[in-house]
Amino acid sequence: MAKKKNRSTAAIIKYDYTNMTDSAIGARHGITEKQIEKTMPHAQEVHRRRVAERKAGKLPFMDLPYKINEASDIAGFAKSTAEKFDNVVVLGIGGSALGTICLQSALNPAFHNLKDNRKRKAPRLFVEDNIDPERLADMLDVLDPKKTLFNVISKSGSTAETMSAFLVARNFIKRTLGPAAVKDHIVATTDVSKGVLRDIADSEGLRSFIVPDGVGGRFSVLTPVGLLPAALVGIDILKLLEGAAIMDKRCRSASPAKNPALMAALLQYIALTRKGKSIQVMMPYANALRDVADWFRQLWAESLGKKYSLDGKVVNSGQTPVKALGATDQHSQAQLYMEGPNDKTITFLRVENFRKDVKIPGGYSKTEGLSYLAGHTFGELIRAEQAATQIAITDNNRPNSTIILPEISPATIGQLLYMLEIETSYMGLLLNIDAFDQPGVEAGKVAAYALMGRAGFEKRAAEINKEAAKVKRKII
Amino acid sequence: MAKKKNRSTAAIIKYDYTNMTDSAIGARHGITEKQIEKTMPHAQEVHRRRVAERKAGKLPFMDLPYKINEASDIAGFAKSTAEKFDNVVVLGIGGSALGTICLQSALNPAFHNLKDNRKRKAPRLFVEDNIDPERLADMLDVLDPKKTLFNVISKSGSTAETMSAFLVARNFIKRTLGPAAVKDHIVATTDVSKGVLRDIADSEGLRSFIVPDGVGGRFSVLTPVGLLPAALVGIDILKLLEGAAIMDKRCRSASPAKNPALMAALLQYIALTRKGKSIQVMMPYANALRDVADWFRQLWAESLGKKYSLDGKVVNSGQTPVKALGATDQHSQAQLYMEGPNDKTITFLRVENFRKDVKIPGGYSKTEGLSYLAGHTFGELIRAEQAATQIAITDNNRPNSTIILPEISPATIGQLLYMLEIETSYMGLLLNIDAFDQPGVEAGKVAAYALMGRAGFEKRAAEINKEAAKVKRKII
Repeated sequence: MAKKKNRSTAAIIKYDYTNMTDSAIGARHGITEKQIEKTMPHAQEVHRRRVAERKAGKLPFMDLPYKINEASDIAGFAKSTAEKFDNVVVLGIGGSALGTICLQSALNPAFHNLKDNRKRKAPRLFVEDNIDPERLADMLDVLDPKKTLFNVISKSGSTAETMSAFLVARNFIKRTLGPAAVKDHIVATTDVSKGVLRDIADSEGLRSFIVPDGVGGRFSVLTPVGLLPAALVGIDILKLLEGAAIMDKRCRSASPAKNPALMAALLQYIALTRKGKSIQVMMPYANALRDVADWFRQLWAESLGKKYSLDGKVVNSGQTPVKALGATDQHSQAQLYMEGPNDKTITFLRVENFRKDVKIPGGYSKTEGLSYLAGHTFGELIRAEQAATQIAITDNNRPNSTIILPEISPATIGQLLYMLEIETSYMGLLLNIDAFDQPGVEAGKVAAYALMGRAGFEKRAAEINKEAAKVKRKII
Repeated sequence: MAKKKNRSTAAIIKYDYTNMTDSAIGARHGITEKQIEKTMPHAQEVHRRRVAERKAGKLPFMDLPYKINEASDIAGFAKSTAEKFDNVVVLGIGGSALGTICLQSALNPAFHNLKDNRKRKAPRLFVEDNIDPERLADMLDVLDPKKTLFNVISKSGSTAETMSAFLVARNFIKRTLGPAAVKDHIVATTDVSKGVLRDIADSEGLRSFIVPDGVGGRFSVLTPVGLLPAALVGIDILKLLEGAAIMDKRCRSASPAKNPALMAALLQYIALTRKGKSIQVMMPYANALRDVADWFRQLWAESLGKKYSLDGKVVNSGQTPVKALGATDQHSQAQLYMEGPNDKTITFLRVENFRKDVKIPGGYSKTEGLSYLAGHTFGELIRAEQAATQIAITDNNRPNSTIILPEISPATIGQLLYMLEIETSYMGLLLNIDAFDQPGVEAGKVAAYALMGRAGFEKRAAEINKEAAKVKRKII
């Protein structure tokens, strides 16, 4: 037992960037030693700024790996609560959903929700992260309210999608179990003192957890936003933090050769700004890691896709993140990645040891085209395909790197997510933008308020009507 | 009843391209009348070539909407078979999986697999489209072999991933139910006469269906590849074909103003080649349509991502397709789409009438920030958010278009998928490439064979080892 524990803690993820460099893919698309050296002072200045900002308390997401007491409280609450429920439903969107989805698919069995209660060790998880009427109606249709706990998550309490779902869930509980049941079936995660959801939680006696100040949604997976649902569905959240802390220590080095987040940011920065790689594909070779790529999509897109002025000129920064899945997408995207425009970097995620493996049986020993498979395992096959795709991509001079997970566990996932968060914060500094705001989404919210007839947005509604009248619609 | 039927058949999808043009987003990023006019002769020549190719029997995917008899046979087989099983498991990858996943999520309830047998009208669907050891082990753990039908799909019978899964499934049935049960629990979809899977089906007496010649995987959704699993899980496949035929008729016009597939291809072509829009985001505002975007990803990427020589110069063509989901991804990707590089076109999918809707209840009539939601439905809210995002994207001069579905039904999905297939074939002709091959994936397959020790690939294995020895790995 103790031995296993040590091994798990010691499983360290690695970053292989060989194929980002000219030695593997040539100097046109590969990054040369000279380019790295030239950018090094900038990278080190950026590291110093990151350290200074952290010291000044400006990067509270970096304190999260050490909030052990808070996590222990969450784990304790979850343990006593989970046994009362068959279903946990998260009502949240964006950063209030993607971390939870990512942790669930990485760390619970593939068909967790399909197992009957006897075989399942923790409640099922539903994440209601949209305002789709059909999915919501279908979900309420399969849920037994008596056995369902809702966790509504919104720092501001004004997220239209989440609060709409909250109104429906509250009504669902009231209608089926009576008004007194609401406080036993809804838990709120929100601001410590401000906002609509805080007011409701306080006045209606809902159990509540706190979204700390200064941690944006996309950096919130290690706050109660991600930790509470994870703990409720049986994930070891203390091990997650342990993993993040391991990565945190590695990322204290000012030398990219020792700091994988800094090295990755440096390479992506050069690839984007010097080699025209405007797209980053993240391609895990493991179904369990598919939603890491989805979580990363938000982190990278929302943090780095920014407009700013430089010497009086408007600059639109950012690298478009794309989610792919190996080996599946070899049969969907590989043709484009091999022969299409050389405008991408590919980041593979590779798993050295799966938690379960399946041996490929024989039966056709004389059939050429089948016999070579027999005796191998699925784990061997998927790793061989990852290596093969990497070789072919590299032979086509496409920059690629690999994050290698010795296993999929809370500790390695903690390392991985935290590495990607720090990489993103470095990338923001390298691009000289604020990685922690999202000014570009405001206009869409205002337009939605106007179209929904919210008081105070009448002027924008009139403008929209006026604009619409000016343009002749082209519809066929 | 008859009335409902007529309405469903008459529900025609529409293509709104207003915001692709300069009148909405200005001449720098928008397409001008002049540019359309200038490209028109090329578009019409391309249409004529498409018509001629079809007449010459070179586009067999365009015959599929009219294969009513074959589809009726499939529907008949499915009807009598489905009642014997609780689970249908598709073993297929790429084009043998994505169409099925897309049809299932579009046309069955959101939590179809979660419903107990009493409430579910058709078997559950599992698509084993990867070689992930953990997911496969977990799947076998939840399946009752007695109630499970496997549909193995591979035209060549040599797809490593699919055939490995077939070997496991065959062994699972043999081991649990005995060798005689194999032919009752496995159905093959493969070539009419050639290949390993055809040989196995014939010699072991498996029921088999035919992948027609000349229809590549990514165009195969309306062949037995997509139709058989769809029919097994209760989807009306004749209505699907009806929808495709409706679109087929619309796409016979040589005038882009009447032919939505030709107009869409023309606009994407100009956006890609004249406006530098190297990415196309497909963003459905409906959970049920999320996998249409995934299916389209393969269609667009594999058909158009090509390398060829032009005047002695290598050209790498293609536009990278990206899958997004509204309203969810407003909280993940919208910041990038609004303020990041203007290197994308966005194709929204919008649904006018959902099959179910949910009213947002009141309860906080005096709470500013909540009260405006009460009384609206989720359908109204998601449509308002689509319109609002479109307005904000347009205000930022980002080219975008909308495919409007009056409802989600087999007939509208048939129209939609077929429109996208024809658009893709037009785009191939506009780019002067072969949209139906995929030469770039061969190298990866060969490398995988070499790494797996397949006989005949020893030379490539030796090369790979030699190449690997030359490059110093950079791992931290």
